[in-house]
Amino acid sequence: MAKIIAAALPNIPWQDRPQNARGPVWRYSANPIIGRDGNKRSNSVFNSAVVPYQGGFAGIFRCDSRSISMDLFAGFSDDGLHWKIDDEPIQMQGADAEVLKVDYRYDPRVCFMDGRYYVSWCNGYHNMPTIGLAYTHDFRTFTQLENAFLPFNRNGVLFPRRIGGVYMMMSRPSDNGHTPFGDIFVSQSPDLELWGRHRYMMGTIKSNESAWQSTKIGPGPIPIETDEGWLLIYHGVITTCNGFVYRMGSALLDIDEPWKVKYRSLDYILGPTELYECVGDVPNVVFPCAALTDGATGRIAIYYGCADTVTGLAFTTVDELLSFTKEFSRR
Amino acid sequence: MAKIIAAALPNIPWQDRPQNARGPVWRYSANPIIGRDGNKRSNSVFNSAVVPYQGGFAGIFRCDSRSISMDLFAGFSDDGLHWKIDDEPIQMQGADAEVLKVDYRYDPRVCFMDGRYYVSWCNGYHNMPTIGLAYTHDFRTFTQLENAFLPFNRNGVLFPRRIGGVYMMMSRPSDNGHTPFGDIFVSQSPDLELWGRHRYMMGTIKSNESAWQSTKIGPGPIPIETDEGWLLIYHGVITTCNGFVYRMGSALLDIDEPWKVKYRSLDYILGPTELYECVGDVPNVVFPCAALTDGATGRIAIYYGCADTVTGLAFTTVDELLSFTKEFSRR
Amino acid sequence: MAKIIAAALPNIPWQDRPQNARGPVWRYSANPIIGRDGNKRSNSVFNSAVVPYQGGFAGIFRCDSRSISMDLFAGFSDDGLHWKIDDEPIQMQGADAEVLKVDYRYDPRVCFMDGRYYVSWCNGYHNMPTIGLAYTHDFRTFTQLENAFLPFNRNGVLFPRRIGGVYMMMSRPSDNGHTPFGDIFVSQSPDLELWGRHRYMMGTIKSNESAWQSTKIGPGPIPIETDEGWLLIYHGVITTCNGFVYRMGSALLDIDEPWKVKYRSLDYILGPTELYECVGDVPNVVFPCAALTDGATGRIAIYYGCADTVTGLAFTTVDELLSFTKEFSRR
Amino acid sequence: MAKIIAAALPNIPWQDRPQNARGPVWRYSANPIIGRDGNKRSNSVFNSAVVPYQGGFAGIFRCDSRSISMDLFAGFSDDGLHWKIDDEPIQMQGADAEVLKVDYRYDPRVCFMDGRYYVSWCNGYHNMPTIGLAYTHDFRTFTQLENAFLPFNRNGVLFPRRIGGVYMMMSRPSDNGHTPFGDIFVSQSPDLELWGRHRYMMGTIKSNESAWQSTKIGPGPIPIETDEGWLLIYHGVITTCNGFVYRMGSALLDIDEPWKVKYRSLDYILGPTELYECVGDVPNVVFPCAALTDGATGRIAIYYGCADTVTGLAFTTVDELLSFTKEFSRR
Amino acid sequence: MAKIIAAALPNIPWQDRPQNARGPVWRYSANPIIGRDGNKRSNSVFNSAVVPYQGGFAGIFRCDSRSISMDLFAGFSDDGLHWKIDDEPIQMQGADAEVLKVDYRYDPRVCFMDGRYYVSWCNGYHNMPTIGLAYTHDFRTFTQLENAFLPFNRNGVLFPRRIGGVYMMMSRPSDNGHTPFGDIFVSQSPDLELWGRHRYMMGTIKSNESAWQSTKIGPGPIPIETDEGWLLIYHGVITTCNGFVYRMGSALLDIDEPWKVKYRSLDYILGPTELYECVGDVPNVVFPCAALTDGATGRIAIYYGCADTVTGLAFTTVDELLSFTKEFSRR
Amino acid sequence: MAKIIAAALPNIPWQDRPQNARGPVWRYSANPIIGRDGNKRSNSVFNSAVVPYQGGFAGIFRCDSRSISMDLFAGFSDDGLHWKIDDEPIQMQGADAEVLKVDYRYDPRVCFMDGRYYVSWCNGYHNMPTIGLAYTHDFRTFTQLENAFLPFNRNGVLFPRRIGGVYMMMSRPSDNGHTPFGDIFVSQSPDLELWGRHRYMMGTIKSNESAWQSTKIGPGPIPIETDEGWLLIYHGVITTCNGFVYRMGSALLDIDEPWKVKYRSLDYILGPTELYECVGDVPNVVFPCAALTDGATGRIAIYYGCADTVTGLAFTTVDELLSFTKEFSRR
Repeated sequence: MAKIIAAALPNIPWQDRPQNARGPVWRYSANPIIGRDGNKRSNSVFNSAVVPYQGGFAGIFRCDSRSISMDLFAGFSDDGLHWKIDDEPIQMQGADAEVLKVDYRYDPRVCFMDGRYYVSWCNGYHNMPTIGLAYTHDFRTFTQLENAFLPFNRNGVLFPRRIGGVYMMMSRPSDNGHTPFGDIFVSQSPDLELWGRHRYMMGTIKSNESAWQSTKIGPGPIPIETDEGWLLIYHGVITTCNGFVYRMGSALLDIDEPWKVKYRSLDYILGPTELYECVGDVPNVVFPCAALTDGATGRIAIYYGCADTVTGLAFTTVDELLSFTKEFSRR
Repeated sequence: MAKIIAAALPNIPWQDRPQNARGPVWRYSANPIIGRDGNKRSNSVFNSAVVPYQGGFAGIFRCDSRSISMDLFAGFSDDGLHWKIDDEPIQMQGADAEVLKVDYRYDPRVCFMDGRYYVSWCNGYHNMPTIGLAYTHDFRTFTQLENAFLPFNRNGVLFPRRIGGVYMMMSRPSDNGHTPFGDIFVSQSPDLELWGRHRYMMGTIKSNESAWQSTKIGPGPIPIETDEGWLLIYHGVITTCNGFVYRMGSALLDIDEPWKVKYRSLDYILGPTELYECVGDVPNVVFPCAALTDGATGRIAIYYGCADTVTGLAFTTVDELLSFTKEFSRR
Repeated sequence: MAKIIAAALPNIPWQDRPQNARGPVWRYSANPIIGRDGNKRSNSVFNSAVVPYQGGFAGIFRCDSRSISMDLFAGFSDDGLHWKIDDEPIQMQGADAEVLKVDYRYDPRVCFMDGRYYVSWCNGYHNMPTIGLAYTHDFRTFTQLENAFLPFNRNGVLFPRRIGGVYMMMSRPSDNGHTPFGDIFVSQSPDLELWGRHRYMMGTIKSNESAWQSTKIGPGPIPIETDEGWLLIYHGVITTCNGFVYRMGSALLDIDEPWKVKYRSLDYILGPTELYECVGDVPNVVFPCAALTDGATGRIAIYYGCADTVTGLAFTTVDELLSFTKEFSRR
Repeated sequence: MAKIIAAALPNIPWQDRPQNARGPVWRYSANPIIGRDGNKRSNSVFNSAVVPYQGGFAGIFRCDSRSISMDLFAGFSDDGLHWKIDDEPIQMQGADAEVLKVDYRYDPRVCFMDGRYYVSWCNGYHNMPTIGLAYTHDFRTFTQLENAFLPFNRNGVLFPRRIGGVYMMMSRPSDNGHTPFGDIFVSQSPDLELWGRHRYMMGTIKSNESAWQSTKIGPGPIPIETDEGWLLIYHGVITTCNGFVYRMGSALLDIDEPWKVKYRSLDYILGPTELYECVGDVPNVVFPCAALTDGATGRIAIYYGCADTVTGLAFTTVDELLSFTKEFSRR
Repeated sequence: MAKIIAAALPNIPWQDRPQNARGPVWRYSANPIIGRDGNKRSNSVFNSAVVPYQGGFAGIFRCDSRSISMDLFAGFSDDGLHWKIDDEPIQMQGADAEVLKVDYRYDPRVCFMDGRYYVSWCNGYHNMPTIGLAYTHDFRTFTQLENAFLPFNRNGVLFPRRIGGVYMMMSRPSDNGHTPFGDIFVSQSPDLELWGRHRYMMGTIKSNESAWQSTKIGPGPIPIETDEGWLLIYHGVITTCNGFVYRMGSALLDIDEPWKVKYRSLDYILGPTELYECVGDVPNVVFPCAALTDGATGRIAIYYGCADTVTGLAFTTVDELLSFTKEFSRR
Repeated sequence: MAKIIAAALPNIPWQDRPQNARGPVWRYSANPIIGRDGNKRSNSVFNSAVVPYQGGFAGIFRCDSRSISMDLFAGFSDDGLHWKIDDEPIQMQGADAEVLKVDYRYDPRVCFMDGRYYVSWCNGYHNMPTIGLAYTHDFRTFTQLENAFLPFNRNGVLFPRRIGGVYMMMSRPSDNGHTPFGDIFVSQSPDLELWGRHRYMMGTIKSNESAWQSTKIGPGPIPIETDEGWLLIYHGVITTCNGFVYRMGSALLDIDEPWKVKYRSLDYILGPTELYECVGDVPNVVFPCAALTDGATGRIAIYYGCADTVTGLAFTTVDELLSFTKEFSRR
């Protein structure tokens, strides 16, 4: 029995696996949990991140407004299912104007570490996407740090503790449009400001063997520490004649050198099949950005964006996901 | 209280604003009002224009046939909701064969002016799109005039009266494919045949401030004259990784120099969210081509194409729309 | 009354034409007949081919796995509606390793001829698509032959008997991606291994006259022999601003020189309008790969892929389809 | 013997046809006549237009500066070979600021008519190319008129007299980049401000029959009036795997309805073969913008841009060019 | 010492290797041997093929006309250096009109076999490129055979004798434009009409190891039989930011199964460096289409197109080329 | 009089400004100084960097081999004009195999600092370009450090001393092909391994004002310290219809916060006009990678790649270049 190395979370949102479920991950029966009208002026709420907070839950939400501006908003929930999202975007404080320079913000992740909630997101700097970074203690006051990397980059995802004495962050170097390529790298930092020792972790698979991840891949939620290594949930993209399809996959990374991939599932773990995943502003997208875990039971609750429009919830357990990942790994 | 400068239209199709409606425009509850089978050989009926006519309503409809040929058809209705559309496309008469040269016709507008119903549309001339122009008194006999402009152009929309003694027409210069750019211009003519004094009116907005109109914009219905200026409903397009999304916006133009934009909403006023708008031959399209107005009450009924497949109806009032346009205008 | 030159098939799946049906082809009321979960590891089951077999039916199915690998699987059915598809892909035997070289397999057709069931499909040879060919007697043991053509090619469809003493195969030369062009050719062979005397049959129609087939066309089911010629059901594609739409058309070919097209319908015979055709991994696709025929009644049952996700069934008769094809043919 | 309907120009620059010349047009032996350093800050001088003026010659020159800004400059010459070009760009006066709005100017033509020298050019209006128009009496003071057309347009070329009582202008509708298409249209105007009755004149030839003009064509110098019709020199472009090649062709237009093409040469009349035509900022370009004619002798001197870098001169006679045009016309 | 298995050719054009030559191939000092004016109406003469004929030499020449039509012309020479090329294109005779259907012809090869001179070329069939085939005994009367393959294909090159009892032809499957991909295949035929058993021979090299052949490769002259295998000279292409560069490479093929590559040079053997190779209608092209060989001395004379404009000649010996090919082969 | 803050270099290669020179930079009269045959197996030698070394000069050269592999080679010279370049590429030593992972190397710069010669270059890591970094004392033994940044990046250029206590490096974030965009950033590091505090320095200019730098820009030689700030020579690119043209520009940066641009020339300082700059493997490129400076006289010698084929030398003085930069700066 695999173990999650994390605190118990008795109030993790949860439903047992339904009889007819296929694959290692199953959906919440009342999906989507957040609709287009998540806050006052929202066109859509998706690709968002949540964490346990003060006995309940807090989160950073991507709400595209009805002008289709992309921005981040704080939100709170008692049960992880029903959310109250602010109507005003997060205002950051920071060292100077250059650090606070932001043209747009999207696709946040939240990582609790050293007593702080670190937020990373895709940050528009001179209208070029890179990785923004900030921290908060209370989801009310946020301190923005230096952008982690040079443009063009997206999907900056921190590991939830120092490894070998340093911080580590995954990311997906990109270009400035609807990037048609993308591999995952790991970078290291002593202080979350200076980064280096960039290592290639894994890339797309161009062959028929696993074509759902042939166009690009990128890290999803904060990696889950297990007794077998880091459990990574990520997204993969294929290009059909009618555009991109985003699905979810999983991998197991070495605990000390996480750029070393021990297992990686050739089968996706969740793909868009429900109407709210297949129809919306961007059809055929499931995009995971957060996972709650219960160290006591091994339960995992995955929050994911659906069709770039609404937010869904799905469930698995560390056992199910790890054994699936190993079974369907490249032999 | 803003006023529409137009005749009363007591039988304007109408439903009051529902409780839960968001935004300044709300849909007819029995949408779509015209389905794929609008006439005998239609594959789809959309992007069409209606006007009050002899106590009821008449219209020019874009019916793509089951060979996916694009053509214009006349139609009639008692209530503006239930339509009887001809099975045969409109036959025009004209000065000579060159004027009547037509490879395809689509996206009509109808403008009542000087006792005539002027029809403008995207006209295929030597297989290049430009603005076709014709008039009718009875929706049975149509006289085609010279094409207004050189190719490549689409969305020619007349102002409903002479301004400063001349006719004025908006249009969106284009190219010969699925044009990825487009701004709105106003041109002037003494006689609807010779055009000049072209003025730039407004263009796309590339920034995060209003990204739904970052790829192209084009005029929609005949502008609505109000005591504060011309109220323009237009379409805007964003390019996602899975294609274009078409939404509706609004602007207030100077009454005498309509290329001068007084207000322009950064928020869209209607976007595709319903299944009949998100699913169809071209997913994620709402495309307005006509608006009925009631000068007595300020009511506005907008006819719009849905997913390039069916025709929908939506409502607003001049007060709602003007105050929204001002509130969400670029500051 | 047109006649199908074929055996009676009393147990052909069938429903009578519904009252409100438009066009010459109508859908099975319980579509789709095969869902995403057609076999153990399938993500989707579509673009597949069936034939009468031992009083029931057998078929070769394209099941994209949950790793989105494309492969072929045998399946069996008593009624043509309920199918049992193997969980393991077909293993072929062949002359040598080079003949058996396969990177992927998709879009099969099955042709009964000379006592053998010939299977043709799109075969990945050195990751380039060409036409794979094999035969079986029992859908259990398959012998793979030489690839018919050089890459790049797709949609190899055999005629069901020798014509003028030689085998004939239609195909659609392609490129190595989401090919944006494609016409139909006929090639000849004395032995199914050596091919030549390639003849152009018909191509796309770029004009407004029949725009649904303006991007590419390709042959569908094995042609149906009638007393008036070969009845061909094929697919045609248009490029909208949001991608490809696949529809079905029909043509009547000369019985002896089948590259000579006697009639060809400008109207499509079936297009995507149902939710399972418009929503899925590739929205807006109907793609026919097989047709059962009853020589006694003239009934035709068409199996077609829906949205590259599930499998649908539709019906027509030789009379309906032939008279439609003639009526809507280019004049 | 064909006749040019124009004044004598005894001092027309001239060299007799060399022995070994192939084709109907031959180059000046001391080409290029203007180099990169045509004026103080020029990077290149090309695609320029000259006319007889006060016993000598005057011209409007496209000088791209060393910042690669594109602008127009006046120049003067005694012999048409040695030019003195202003160092400061032309300053226009005009009705108002909107008319004078110019982002860039290039590829001028000059047409003497009604005692005025009319200049037309590609004018950047809101950074979109359209046809700018102005007149001068002395090449010192210029009055800018309204832009003739909506964007996107290039190569506006006036006919040198009213035809049927109206002005006529050729042009080539374009897009906003390195346009990969382009046909020639004729438009009419009573006053050079309002334009209409647009007629398609001729387009590209896609077949092997005349592939040098398969990508786009555009009018060159002011048409030459002859007793057989308007003699038009134009440019045509082919797309090779290494970019565009620009060549010159000729056509004979109906004298009263010049959109009717009587003859059009399938062979080009001059192509880039000399080092100064094949090497430069844009390799492989000959681009004619002006022609001097001598009504007494039938001599024609063509000024053309070379490789978008320098200016060349070439010669022919009305007899040579007309007989060539007829001989190599599509049969 | 390697040996060419071929007749002596004492009058092979020849110059000894100059002192300063680098690489295994050196140019004729008076290159180009044929200029733009190779025949009456030629714009350019290149990518052509020659053979020994009646004590002198004959050839099939690609002459692009001054309308840039691509066609084939016969030519004759006493010394292989000075050529007299026909002014009229080759007229073929053939079985029927369909076989003779030709939209354009280019890039010929000539192969002497069984007492006939076989000509293969890129043949436009319904404006799609495929491999045309014909034979002649006297370069005056030509009999056209069936096109060898389905479109899209180019560079069909015969082996000069039956291998294992069958004819063999290399070719490069393509698309319908400036194809950005291309590998070499070998196909087999008993009769030069029916083809099959297609085998992949070799493809592009995408890595830094041999980037000059990273975009596409294609066979050049008829392979040279040696005592160590077939010596193949081929072209390879890289895509720079300013277009394609074509260079020459060499490989040694198995004598019985020529799709098996024994050696293949990673270094090119000739690249464009001379002005006539770098400047012309398509800059930076050397494209070999024929090689004369002297079985007595091992001398090889390569005819190659330069910049798609003129024809060059280069020399090597079987010893030089084979040892180079082995030395620079992938280890 | 501006001053270079650097040592005297009496043996700097030098020629005085010729009479007829235009612009602030003039060419060496015997250019190119290094041809295609710079070392044994070179196809081309360009985009290389030199420094004073032991009384003479040393350099790191980009020699593309005759397989068109891109690699770095050391070279030495007594006079800076005649160079002896190694035939074997540089072998690095480094901490581990991952640090030494190199797929290709190109476009080096050399920066003398802290007694070491630091080399930066475009380094292929998993076939993705990023900035490689190494140091040497003797141009014989090289120690490779960590790659500075994540892919995709090119043109990493160090400042020649610590600024505010930290190292600084300019770079141009890119994509993985012939990148059509590119701005210059400055990054900071305490140790040349960890990098952060990335600042946008300057970008392309899209307007007519300075179109030669409208596609992308990137830093060239190590910045030259002057008493007025850092003098930066950089390259800029425009996209013509026939590809990219690379030219040189100059800017003056704040001495303490070098991302602040004090002056930037709108005019280029050198563009391709000579045959060896306009003709070659990539036509129309001048690309500066190094500058020698003489603190005593203010002389500057610029080494630049020509047409991606050979190496040229050009001259200026700090006075000429600074005054030009200020004069032609955006006002």
